[in-house]
Amino acid sequence: MQRFINNPDDVVDEIVKGYLLDNRALETLPNNFRVVKRKKIPKRVTLVSGGGSGHEPSFIGYIRPGMLDVAAIGEIFSSPTAKSFREAFKVADQGAGVACIFGNYSGDNMNVKSAIMDVADEGVKVKSVVSRDDIASAPKSEKDRRHGIAGLYYMWLVAGKVAEQGGSLEEVCAAAQRAADNTASICVGLKELTIPAVGHPNFKIPDGKYELGIGHHGEPGLEKYTLSSSNEIAKKMVGELIEDLDISEKNEVAIMLSGLGSTPIGEQYILFQDVMYWLKKQDIKVVSTKVGNLVTSLNMNGAALTILKLDSKLKEWLINKC
Amino acid sequence: MQRFINNPDDVVDEIVKGYLLDNRALETLPNNFRVVKRKKIPKRVTLVSGGGSGHEPSFIGYIRPGMLDVAAIGEIFSSPTAKSFREAFKVADQGAGVACIFGNYSGDNMNVKSAIMDVADEGVKVKSVVSRDDIASAPKSEKDRRHGIAGLYYMWLVAGKVAEQGGSLEEVCAAAQRAADNTASICVGLKELTIPAVGHPNFKIPDGKYELGIGHHGEPGLEKYTLSSSNEIAKKMVGELIEDLDISEKNEVAIMLSGLGSTPIGEQYILFQDVMYWLKKQDIKVVSTKVGNLVTSLNMNGAALTILKLDSKLKEWLINKC
Repeated sequence: MQRFINNPDDVVDEIVKGYLLDNRALETLPNNFRVVKRKKIPKRVTLVSGGGSGHEPSFIGYIRPGMLDVAAIGEIFSSPTAKSFREAFKVADQGAGVACIFGNYSGDNMNVKSAIMDVADEGVKVKSVVSRDDIASAPKSEKDRRHGIAGLYYMWLVAGKVAEQGGSLEEVCAAAQRAADNTASICVGLKELTIPAVGHPNFKIPDGKYELGIGHHGEPGLEKYTLSSSNEIAKKMVGELIEDLDISEKNEVAIMLSGLGSTPIGEQYILFQDVMYWLKKQDIKVVSTKVGNLVTSLNMNGAALTILKLDSKLKEWLINKC
Repeated sequence: MQRFINNPDDVVDEIVKGYLLDNRALETLPNNFRVVKRKKIPKRVTLVSGGGSGHEPSFIGYIRPGMLDVAAIGEIFSSPTAKSFREAFKVADQGAGVACIFGNYSGDNMNVKSAIMDVADEGVKVKSVVSRDDIASAPKSEKDRRHGIAGLYYMWLVAGKVAEQGGSLEEVCAAAQRAADNTASICVGLKELTIPAVGHPNFKIPDGKYELGIGHHGEPGLEKYTLSSSNEIAKKMVGELIEDLDISEKNEVAIMLSGLGSTPIGEQYILFQDVMYWLKKQDIKVVSTKVGNLVTSLNMNGAALTILKLDSKLKEWLINKC
């Protein structure tokens, strides 16, 4: 494996350690290195998220003013434990309640639910909002089965804004839900990932092909296509998302394009300008953009495109470029 | 090639186009898409840089308040033309002079010098400061031959600070020179890069090996070593830099670790915490850190480590985390 690692079992510990050395406003709990928090948590409704590691900078990279206050993290591609969620909720709560905004995966769902019940007995009120933005993970008719991926970003952003404005737990969660209801994402994979402790890819994307709709852990996508051009890929991604969100001309949207781990920045911008081309061609107005390695999948080569269909409220919360 | 591109000849145009669509405060010159500038250039000494494309987000990603005002860019790994530097200087100048802070490569040197002479005839005063931070590109005794790589970042940052404080052209350039004199970088390569228009790697790093001191375009390094652990690599990188900069215990430093293009964020943090381990072990105090894809080399897998040895003035200009 041509990569920077030491013992594969230490990967998560060392990522967290490195991140905290670079971000001195954060710390772990003294007895649980899988719960990361702002050193000073503001007195208001607080935001918690969590999920498996390997998606850096998510989740810990979004613990910052205006977004998350605390995150529970799991091993590579594994849910945080119920204990970690429980401890995250307890340390996050400042008396006004906790919004837990996370992505739909069975393990996370189970552990969040269990933790919410546990802390309720101790007087900590937690409401959860679930992201199901990966449109390739299940058909629209079975939206409850869809996974949550990069779209969480917008939920944290609008919920964070409402929380900072002093909103109640219900208002914060309603904002996150409003974003969730209007967000859709789709990934493409050009080259598979390798989990460090496994040491070889669990799946393969053949050279000359790309996989539309691949999951954030390499789950099979909608279809494999012949790799032609960035523009053709952008056309397919945009087409799937605007159909799913029922976006029509003159709609205003925010878009986010994330590299999946080993995709060079320059190529992200090439794909992004192709995405913008297809949106413009359909008279869809893009009022907010974000490009970069935002929610990744270890060393997968590929990209995730997320569209948030805006209404006046969502637009106000996002304001300009975020 | 498993990558997001269209026509390989359009790669630079499309990267710039994408970047400008995501950063609305920037624009190209109307008749030269290889000169990118802030739409509103402040009335003070202005900062110009430039170099080959393929190092995104450098150079255009550093056109922002407190850093560059204008950048001239070339084709992939090729110097901008003298014409582009000339036009960059002319549009940058607000009457107080222009600081051109660029990396030492023969093409860039030649074109910058030629452009400076040309615009002098038109009354535009340009002073240049050259980065030679890549310690692997020539021995210390031949420092003039060394190439400039990621260390430019600190030169732009301190020069930008002095310019924003209203410093003269001489003061701005002296700040950049002071950073240059105290900055050293070294790269490691784990996996080679491919220039899109070439379509296959120009050089190879065998599996199980890594190359210490590889150049930003794949220039041969100091030596190939067996790939063992991130910690061993960090030890070698830190060792080379502190020897070159003559850093001893209790010295204060700023450090920057950049992925080279296809290195996942998580692995960058693993390597970073190993770098911090070796600096701490030698009692070197790190007062400023920066980790990410900061100056890349297309899709090379690897990392660049940069150390800036601080004195009280450099520390004041950097202030805290930058």
